[in-house]
Amino acid sequence: MSSQPPHAALLIPGPIEFDDAVLQSMGHYSESHVGPAFVAVFGETLAMTRKLFQTTDPASQPFILSGSGTLGWDLVAANIVEPGEAVLVLNTGYFSDGFADCLRVYGADVTSLTAPAVGARPQLPEIEAALKAKKYKALTVTHVDTSTAVLSELKDLSAMIKRTSPETLIIVDGVCSVACEEIQFDAWSLDAVITASQKAIGCPAGLSISMFSGRAIETVKARKAPVGSYFASMKNWLPIMQNYENKKPSYFATPSPQLIRALHTALTQVLAKPLSERFARHKEVSDKVKAAVARLGLKQVAGKEEDQAHGMTAIYLPDSVKATELLPILSKAGIVFAGGIHKEIQPKYIRFGHMGVSVMDPSRPEIYNAIKALEAGLVQLGFLV
Amino acid sequence: MSSQPPHAALLIPGPIEFDDAVLQSMGHYSESHVGPAFVAVFGETLAMTRKLFQTTDPASQPFILSGSGTLGWDLVAANIVEPGEAVLVLNTGYFSDGFADCLRVYGADVTSLTAPAVGARPQLPEIEAALKAKKYKALTVTHVDTSTAVLSELKDLSAMIKRTSPETLIIVDGVCSVACEEIQFDAWSLDAVITASQKAIGCPAGLSISMFSGRAIETVKARKAPVGSYFASMKNWLPIMQNYENKKPSYFATPSPQLIRALHTALTQVLAKPLSERFARHKEVSDKVKAAVARLGLKQVAGKEEDQAHGMTAIYLPDSVKATELLPILSKAGIVFAGGIHKEIQPKYIRFGHMGVSVMDPSRPEIYNAIKALEAGLVQLGFLV
Repeated sequence: MSSQPPHAALLIPGPIEFDDAVLQSMGHYSESHVGPAFVAVFGETLAMTRKLFQTTDPASQPFILSGSGTLGWDLVAANIVEPGEAVLVLNTGYFSDGFADCLRVYGADVTSLTAPAVGARPQLPEIEAALKAKKYKALTVTHVDTSTAVLSELKDLSAMIKRTSPETLIIVDGVCSVACEEIQFDAWSLDAVITASQKAIGCPAGLSISMFSGRAIETVKARKAPVGSYFASMKNWLPIMQNYENKKPSYFATPSPQLIRALHTALTQVLAKPLSERFARHKEVSDKVKAAVARLGLKQVAGKEEDQAHGMTAIYLPDSVKATELLPILSKAGIVFAGGIHKEIQPKYIRFGHMGVSVMDPSRPEIYNAIKALEAGLVQLGFLV
Repeated sequence: MSSQPPHAALLIPGPIEFDDAVLQSMGHYSESHVGPAFVAVFGETLAMTRKLFQTTDPASQPFILSGSGTLGWDLVAANIVEPGEAVLVLNTGYFSDGFADCLRVYGADVTSLTAPAVGARPQLPEIEAALKAKKYKALTVTHVDTSTAVLSELKDLSAMIKRTSPETLIIVDGVCSVACEEIQFDAWSLDAVITASQKAIGCPAGLSISMFSGRAIETVKARKAPVGSYFASMKNWLPIMQNYENKKPSYFATPSPQLIRALHTALTQVLAKPLSERFARHKEVSDKVKAAVARLGLKQVAGKEEDQAHGMTAIYLPDSVKATELLPILSKAGIVFAGGIHKEIQPKYIRFGHMGVSVMDPSRPEIYNAIKALEAGLVQLGFLV
C-alpha cells in the first residue's frame, strides 16, 4: 500500500509517478551541503549515475546540477561548442527545435536535418551524406522526442558517425529516454547524454543530470573561446563533481540536498535489478499499450514500429474527438495524460507516459486503468460503442 | 514537537533548518506541472513573492526557476547587461567576487569597488565619486555577503544613486538577506533582487528566486544584443511566469512541483505575520548572538555594528583555536556551524547562521544551544576557563 494520499495517476511523459521512498527522501531534514553525510550521499549518487549510463571509463564525467532538464542543452551549447562551430541537429520534433535554438544562442552554426514528416526521423543515408558534405564539431540527436514519442536509433547511428566523421562529437538528448531505453555510453562511443530527474529515473523535477566522455571534457578544456555561461560552466563544476565523488566537500553553488537524497533513493531502486530487465519491462508494457491503442482504432504519431519510444506513446485522436474534451474525462477517471505540444499537430493528439514505477511496480494498477479509461472516454465521446 | 528525526541543528548561513510543514510539502505526490492544482499553487507562490519583496507595482516581475542561487547572477548578467556595458560592483567579499566573475562571462565591463578591508564595505562618498567619474549601466551590491556577514545599506545607497546617476540600474544580491533583512523593493527603487530558497525564506535548496522592476524588464526587451543564455533567458521565462501568475498553464522548461509546493508553504508561514515583526525578531536574536560573541572574548569579521548582518555572524577565532578543531567539537554537541570561505582569512573564522525557523519558532532551542556549545568548545580547547 502506498503511503501517498489518493490522487489521479500522473501518466504524462514526465514528471511521472514517484515511489513512496523517493518522496520520503524529499522530506529529509536539513543538512549541510558540505557535511560528511551529504557529501557521501552525493558521491554515491554520482557513482550510481555512471552505472545508469553503463560507463566504466574513468574519463567519463557525470554532472548533477540544480536546474530543469533544459539546462543540459546549455551545458552542451556553452561548453562543448565554440562560437561559429558547426553542429548538425537531427530534428524529430519540438525538443530538437529547442536544442537547436539553445545552440544558436551560444553562437553555434546549426544545420537542422529535419525528419521527412512529423512522426518520422532523419534516416542514416541522409545523415551520412550530410556528414560527408561538411565538417561538424558535434551532432545532436533527441533519443526520444517527448513531443512525438519518436525514438531515434543510437547504436547504428554512432557506428556510422565513427566511420564517416570520427571527430564529430555525439551528443544525445536523453531527457525522455534515460532509464527506460537502452543507452550504452561506452560501447556506443557517446560523448554526452543529458537528461533530467523527473522522467524514467523517477525523482522529482529540479535536477539536470548528464554524462560527458573524456573526449568531451578535453574539448571543453581545450576551448579557445571562454565558456559562454557561468552557472552552466563545466569548468566551474568539474572540480566540484570530482571532489564530491571522491567524498571531499567542495563548493561552487549550493546543491539541493533533498533532491540529491531523492535521486540517491531513485537510482538505488533503478540499479537494484539488471538494467536489461528494466528496459525489457518498459518494452513489454509499451507493446501492450500500443496494442491497446491499435485495438481502439487509434494511430500513433510515430509511424513505424522501429521509431516508437518505449516510455511513452503519442496517440492521434479521431477527427470527432477533441483533446480538450477527452483529457478532462480521463482526469475525472483518475488518469492524467498530456495534450499535444508539436506545433504542426498540437490539437490532434495526446501523450501517454508509461515509465518508472508505474511500469516497474507490479502492484500499481495505473497503466491498466489508463487503457480502460481511454476506452471509456472514447465511448463517452461517441467514437466507440 | 517536530516530526523530524533527531539531528544536529544546521546553523550555517544556508541551507538553514526547515519547518516540518515545509519538509512535508517536499514529499507531495507527483502532479502535472501544467495541471490546474499546481498552476494555482505556482501562481499564488509568485504573488506571495511580491509581498515578500514589498512590491505592489504591477510592472515588477518575479521569477522562480529551478537552479541554485548562483543562477540569479546569470539572470542579471545575461539579460540586463549587454556586452561592453559598464557595471560597478560594490565588493564586500567572496560573493561579490563571484557576481563580478559572472558579469564578465557575459561581456560586462566590470569595475570593482572593493571594501577598504575585509569586514568593511565601500562607503557612499567613494561610490558617489565612482558614479560621477563614469556612466554605469548597472550597480551591484551584495546585501549580505555570506563570506563576511557584512551588511550593505540599501536605502541611502539607492537615494544617492537616484541623485547622482538615476539611469543606473540598482541590482541587489539578496541571497543571504531576503526574508531576514528589510528590503523595500518599490520604496527604495530597486531594479533587481536575486535570492535563493534555502536561506531565510526557509525552503530547501534548488530554487532561484528573483524580482525585477518594470525598468529592468524594459531594459531586457530593448536589448540590441541577443540574450546571452538560453536557460537563464528572461525573454524565455517572462511569458511563463506571467501565465502561471494568471493561473494559465504554460511551458518553457519543467519546474519542480515539489520545490514550488515547499516554497508555497514557506512563504505562507513567512507572510503570516507582518514582515516588520520578522525583521525585528531577526535583529533581536542577532543582537543576542553578537553580545554572546563579545562576552566570549571573540571579534566579528564585520567590524562596525552598522555593517553587521542580522541573519548570520562571522566570528574570528582566537589564535590558539583552530576551526578544524572547533567545528567537529560543535558538531558532536549537535550544532553545525560553517567554516570560513573568504580567501584572505579562510582558516581564521567561523560562520553562524541564525535565520528562519531557528529564530522565529520560540519552541526551537538551537540558537541558545549553539551559544552554549560554542562556549563549551572554547573551554575544551583551552581558550576559556
